[in-house]
Amino acid sequence: KKIVVIPGDGIGQEITDSAVAVLKKVSDKYNLNLEFESHPAGGTAYDLCGTPLPQTTLEAAQNADAVLFGAVGGPKWDNVEPTLRPEKAVLGLRKGLGLYANLRPIKVADALVEYSPLKEEIVKGTDVLIVRELIGGIYFGDKCESEIYEGNERAWDLENYSVPEVNRIVEFAMQASKKRKNKVTSVDKSNVLATSRLWRRTTAKVAEKYPEITLENLYVDNCAMQLAINPSQFDVIVTGNLFGDILSDEAAVLSGSIGMLPSASIGESTSLYEPIHGSAPDIAGKGIANPLATILSAAMLLRYSLDEQEAATCIEQAVDKALAQGYRTPDLYKEGFIKADTKTMTEAVLNNI
Amino acid sequence: KKIVVIPGDGIGQEITDSAVAVLKKVSDKYNLNLEFESHPAGGTAYDLCGTPLPQTTLEAAQNADAVLFGAVGGPKWDNVEPTLRPEKAVLGLRKGLGLYANLRPIKVADALVEYSPLKEEIVKGTDVLIVRELIGGIYFGDKCESEIYEGNERAWDLENYSVPEVNRIVEFAMQASKKRKNKVTSVDKSNVLATSRLWRRTTAKVAEKYPEITLENLYVDNCAMQLAINPSQFDVIVTGNLFGDILSDEAAVLSGSIGMLPSASIGESTSLYEPIHGSAPDIAGKGIANPLATILSAAMLLRYSLDEQEAATCIEQAVDKALAQGYRTPDLYKEGFIKADTKTMTEAVLNNI
Ligand SMILES: CC(C)[C@H](C(=O)O)[C@@H](O)C(=O)O
Ligand SMILES: CC(C)[C@H](C(=O)O)[C@@H](O)C(=O)O
Repeated sequence: KKIVVIPGDGIGQEITDSAVAVLKKVSDKYNLNLEFESHPAGGTAYDLCGTPLPQTTLEAAQNADAVLFGAVGGPKWDNVEPTLRPEKAVLGLRKGLGLYANLRPIKVADALVEYSPLKEEIVKGTDVLIVRELIGGIYFGDKCESEIYEGNERAWDLENYSVPEVNRIVEFAMQASKKRKNKVTSVDKSNVLATSRLWRRTTAKVAEKYPEITLENLYVDNCAMQLAINPSQFDVIVTGNLFGDILSDEAAVLSGSIGMLPSASIGESTSLYEPIHGSAPDIAGKGIANPLATILSAAMLLRYSLDEQEAATCIEQAVDKALAQGYRTPDLYKEGFIKADTKTMTEAVLNNI
Repeated sequence: KKIVVIPGDGIGQEITDSAVAVLKKVSDKYNLNLEFESHPAGGTAYDLCGTPLPQTTLEAAQNADAVLFGAVGGPKWDNVEPTLRPEKAVLGLRKGLGLYANLRPIKVADALVEYSPLKEEIVKGTDVLIVRELIGGIYFGDKCESEIYEGNERAWDLENYSVPEVNRIVEFAMQASKKRKNKVTSVDKSNVLATSRLWRRTTAKVAEKYPEITLENLYVDNCAMQLAINPSQFDVIVTGNLFGDILSDEAAVLSGSIGMLPSASIGESTSLYEPIHGSAPDIAGKGIANPLATILSAAMLLRYSLDEQEAATCIEQAVDKALAQGYRTPDLYKEGFIKADTKTMTEAVLNNI
């Protein structure tokens, strides 16, 4: 099984190194025969090859069984022209691999409740899966950077969704919810947007096939509020690309453990796994980044792309144990715990495998 | 001076009645000579006249010195056809009055910190003004409810901004910040959207005229996070219509006092004032709604539309006093305070004028 590793920029190298070490250990333990191949992307690739997503990287990803991604971006490339910015690697991989469903499980472990900016009684018990459509909507609609319209310069972007796009992502959410708590919240802005009205009526039709699942519709502004005042009401949230971008970051940070949160982006043949957090240029190279989100992304990789449930669970339990043993990287460190740098934390996890 | 009052639906009548009583009292005290004229809108207007925004209501608003608005909407009109829903009154008034700048001051009073879902140390000291562009962007761009495109049904909405639109709202934000803490955070998604790139470069140009003001740019997903983990970093936030809708609701709810928050929508000749909260159909008619957001909106009306600073301050202080005296409507009631219904709270405020 070939895993393509794309460390990217900033702390990307450090955190994917950790996750690969963990994958190697479970590969040995469970005889998974994993092979790893590393490729550049983001600013690093721009510096090396003049483009944030070299063709060789994209092709390797397309031919892999799964992709493990770190993070991209940094102030160094802030003034690079828009089409060559590090983020373009992310968008190019999404489109090039057809990664239509972005999954962000946001679960607040009782032991980590205190890290949330929310009061304990509000955040406790939160366990939501955000399913974000990832290759449609306004992200990939037609755009115009500048034109003269009615005598003024303007720019525009086309928000749009087709029925098959909505069908696919809502089906995905329904199936995911069947294995959870049988509730799907679809988020749109159908009191204003035509695209949202198509989204809502298409979702209603898909839901007819799942009578056991409760479908709820929320406006995006209301959802942004509900996540803050009552996050445990949610099971699965399904939404479009732009709303998903905003709401999943809000939910992640409200959980208090953004350094711990993995994600999966599901494609038709190859899927990609990455931490939710960014490339943290301010701490890059210092060896203090929290590798757990990437290690947990590796667990998702085993679960979703390789169907290795046991090995995935083994990693997740090793992470839980390392936390229970008191290891904390600086982002989560509090008195009474064991301060761990990236290496120490990784070893703690490895020792629990 | 003519004030057009549009109570709308749900608790709209109760809360605007309270605010009008308060306005009458300060009108007498300061000799403001205010006159009031009430007009229907929303579901109530649909029931009466078959349209959520009767021409007579719009014209009265256009000819008024200022408009005091309650709230619209309710489950009763959920199945009315989209173009006749109560929200259309809101959008119609915005467009019809040219209400280009929506202002939401979100200030967390020390005495009310405990109502926030956020931990006290995080929310304390928050005092942000959100300036949302209100008559442009994807809300009013071209739309298509349904078309066949590449063999599939799709719908679309056009997000768009012109340079003059961005200039106007950013100028407004800069001016507002001059009277505050000299910091403006412009929120966009310029790593993805062409419209945001025009927004960002136009904002940079406007900012050149205000060297004393610090301009910061944030992506919308990052802003959704920062509001939750460090809301007191902000002074003025300026953003487009859709992002403003989401972020201002998130910020409002994080403040914990959504029943207390006023808003102003500034037009070229007439401006409109309304509470941030909705029509709360579940408690409508019970006489228990919190009238303070609407009363504080009336204070904004005096301040911005009539330039009656003293009378405005008088209302704001009367509200502060009522809270200090311990009055709390059910939404904010806690043991040890005086439980007040709408009438009692209104009288408490009136007695402090
Ligand atoms: C880097 C950026 C283009 C990206 C997005 O907006 O999708 C990021 O915010 C994310 O959520 O993965
Ligand atoms: C009712 C709706 C159209 C409106 C909006 O989206 O602007 C509301 O959410 C608001 O923020 O005033």
